[in-house]
Amino acid sequence: MENPGRKAAEKSAKILEAIREKHPLVHNITNYVVMNFTANVLLALGASPVMAHAVEEMEEMVGLAGALVINIGTLSAPWVDGMQKAAEAARKRSIPIVLDPVGAGATRFRTETARRLMREGISVLRGNASEVLAVAGAGAATKGVDSVHGTEAAGSVARELASNHRMIVAVTGAEDFVTDGARAARIANGDPLMGRITGTGCAASAITGAFCAVEKDVFAAAVGALTVFGIAGEIAAVTHPGPGSFQPLLLDKLDTLDCATIQNRAKITFL
Amino acid sequence: MENPGRKAAEKSAKILEAIREKHPLVHNITNYVVMNFTANVLLALGASPVMAHAVEEMEEMVGLAGALVINIGTLSAPWVDGMQKAAEAARKRSIPIVLDPVGAGATRFRTETARRLMREGISVLRGNASEVLAVAGAGAATKGVDSVHGTEAAGSVARELASNHRMIVAVTGAEDFVTDGARAARIANGDPLMGRITGTGCAASAITGAFCAVEKDVFAAAVGALTVFGIAGEIAAVTHPGPGSFQPLLLDKLDTLDCATIQNRAKITFL
Amino acid sequence: MENPGRKAAEKSAKILEAIREKHPLVHNITNYVVMNFTANVLLALGASPVMAHAVEEMEEMVGLAGALVINIGTLSAPWVDGMQKAAEAARKRSIPIVLDPVGAGATRFRTETARRLMREGISVLRGNASEVLAVAGAGAATKGVDSVHGTEAAGSVARELASNHRMIVAVTGAEDFVTDGARAARIANGDPLMGRITGTGCAASAITGAFCAVEKDVFAAAVGALTVFGIAGEIAAVTHPGPGSFQPLLLDKLDTLDCATIQNRAKITFL
Repeated sequence: MENPGRKAAEKSAKILEAIREKHPLVHNITNYVVMNFTANVLLALGASPVMAHAVEEMEEMVGLAGALVINIGTLSAPWVDGMQKAAEAARKRSIPIVLDPVGAGATRFRTETARRLMREGISVLRGNASEVLAVAGAGAATKGVDSVHGTEAAGSVARELASNHRMIVAVTGAEDFVTDGARAARIANGDPLMGRITGTGCAASAITGAFCAVEKDVFAAAVGALTVFGIAGEIAAVTHPGPGSFQPLLLDKLDTLDCATIQNRAKITFL
Repeated sequence: MENPGRKAAEKSAKILEAIREKHPLVHNITNYVVMNFTANVLLALGASPVMAHAVEEMEEMVGLAGALVINIGTLSAPWVDGMQKAAEAARKRSIPIVLDPVGAGATRFRTETARRLMREGISVLRGNASEVLAVAGAGAATKGVDSVHGTEAAGSVARELASNHRMIVAVTGAEDFVTDGARAARIANGDPLMGRITGTGCAASAITGAFCAVEKDVFAAAVGALTVFGIAGEIAAVTHPGPGSFQPLLLDKLDTLDCATIQNRAKITFL
Repeated sequence: MENPGRKAAEKSAKILEAIREKHPLVHNITNYVVMNFTANVLLALGASPVMAHAVEEMEEMVGLAGALVINIGTLSAPWVDGMQKAAEAARKRSIPIVLDPVGAGATRFRTETARRLMREGISVLRGNASEVLAVAGAGAATKGVDSVHGTEAAGSVARELASNHRMIVAVTGAEDFVTDGARAARIANGDPLMGRITGTGCAASAITGAFCAVEKDVFAAAVGALTVFGIAGEIAAVTHPGPGSFQPLLLDKLDTLDCATIQNRAKITFL
């Protein structure tokens, strides 16, 4: 009897190998807080990051990229223009778009920007439970950029959102949840320390972008990205003496993670 | 006979415990250089950081926060608008405001912006000696963002500034000096290595914000913040092999710092 | 018989010593991704970094600085105005300017901005081979911000560019190449790990700025900067367990690098 969780783990490892071979360019329009960490995460993974946000260069830069990752963590009006333009350019060229609605629910500016970008036709929405509930209009409150909801609370809303917008919704938290509306997977990898440093959610979105850049099955790409990142995190957490040391260690573990470890440690279950 | 320095150390430890219990949201409008480090410092401390600067969301974001920290380190006109709006919103709601006048004295743009924000009614002004002298109009020159004055040189100016604006002034340097105009405390914790990495002054301001978010006695909060941060710094410096390794270690030490260590190591004297 | 490579190594060490004595202020207008790392690199080196970009304060801030470093890595129109103004102010005062044309060739916005700034009269152009070829109009394609050309491919173009603009061109890669049009040096220090973290190219430019701030012979300053940085990188790489740990270690090694090590390890050859 075949085991779908095991197959998904194998697939995750294969996509990671493809990233390491092809070094896809991932174009990030992301927030100031995490730019350095995100770039280093993508480099450790084997991808090639570029950060650019000016309207003037969106069309050309997107044209070079294998994926576009839009993160609204430190939003302002000129950046929204750049995001909009980049999203249009990506959709025109069928380049996958990952949207990270950081802080949606905390302010209308964020919630509305996330929704407007979502209507551009994105491939993956990756957020915490509060953010996903807020984007879906499920009336959730967000405390700044930290979730006040567990992943499970967002499950049915995420399924509906995915169906309505024909996209993948990836809700991350203590456990991660990925759905395309019909299928759904739960990933139980990761470590609580990942929530003690800034930018791990944003990194998950960027990694999802890299996975989408080399894998056409977006559902498998999202599952793979969260599985790989979660495993790197839990390995790094084993020897960490604290959140400060954990951050560089996480990059080291992403860099050396091998296929066997992914297959041994992956905790993917289909719902 | 009671020892006020010892009492202040106990109080510092208690405020830190309250932060770890309540995880107050600290809204930062800060400079690009230190955003990541500041967010990680606040997370290591037990607070919940959010970074946001757009005029469009200032009112709502401030409304969620326990404290507002404004740092002018990489200033531009649109950010000044956001700072102004946020300060007004915070004052209306009696949310404490910490102002970090990075580089005041180096350019008129910075000096004038710091003064204008100060007139909004802030709770704590936290700067190095040159910056505090510049904001006070005491004719000091600043070399970029590094102080060219010792803390002691700013003592009487700081007292007067604190009295005139009914705020706490916290001057940091080799020794730190905190005053409300009447009372004044000197804190002799910390390590020279803290000046060898970027953003420790900014981190001191952010930590002061977290302390103010859970403690109404703003003088005690400022003393506590600088004491706790100084102690974490001196413990991290013990085992560091250099400034690069010192930064993650400082976060680790903030994360694990306990009450007994604070009471044993605090060097607070009242003047 | 004198050995010019050996003399250049001695000179490199002497310039580093001058930086550690004089702590020159280096004014950076750089990209969001690398601001923190760049500031920490300059501090570890012994220089004093300041980051500022607003048109309102360019004239005053440049006036305080020993060198100006302009990096176009996350460009937008208001920043271009600040760069232009800063470059004019620096040229008026004969303050050396280092230009880092990050991503030139990837978009017209970057290529044209780099060229316009170059016409202001800069001291050093520091880029990877693809960027230098693009700025020279040699029709190169750039993949985002990573070079697709080897250093040697840019040699003759770099010489011509240097001659035409009376500036130093420093092309970095597996080996570095520095030329003023007539003279040319190759530096074979460094380690491939430096390409596995973000911001090492940008750091090389910032270090070049610090070297130019204390040394009038700009060719010697550029050679010295790349030699010192390459040596710190290769020493850090010896004990690193991965790219994450490599970054703080690189700062530690810059901090402790001594003259004897520089003279023993420098691999400078004149062409």
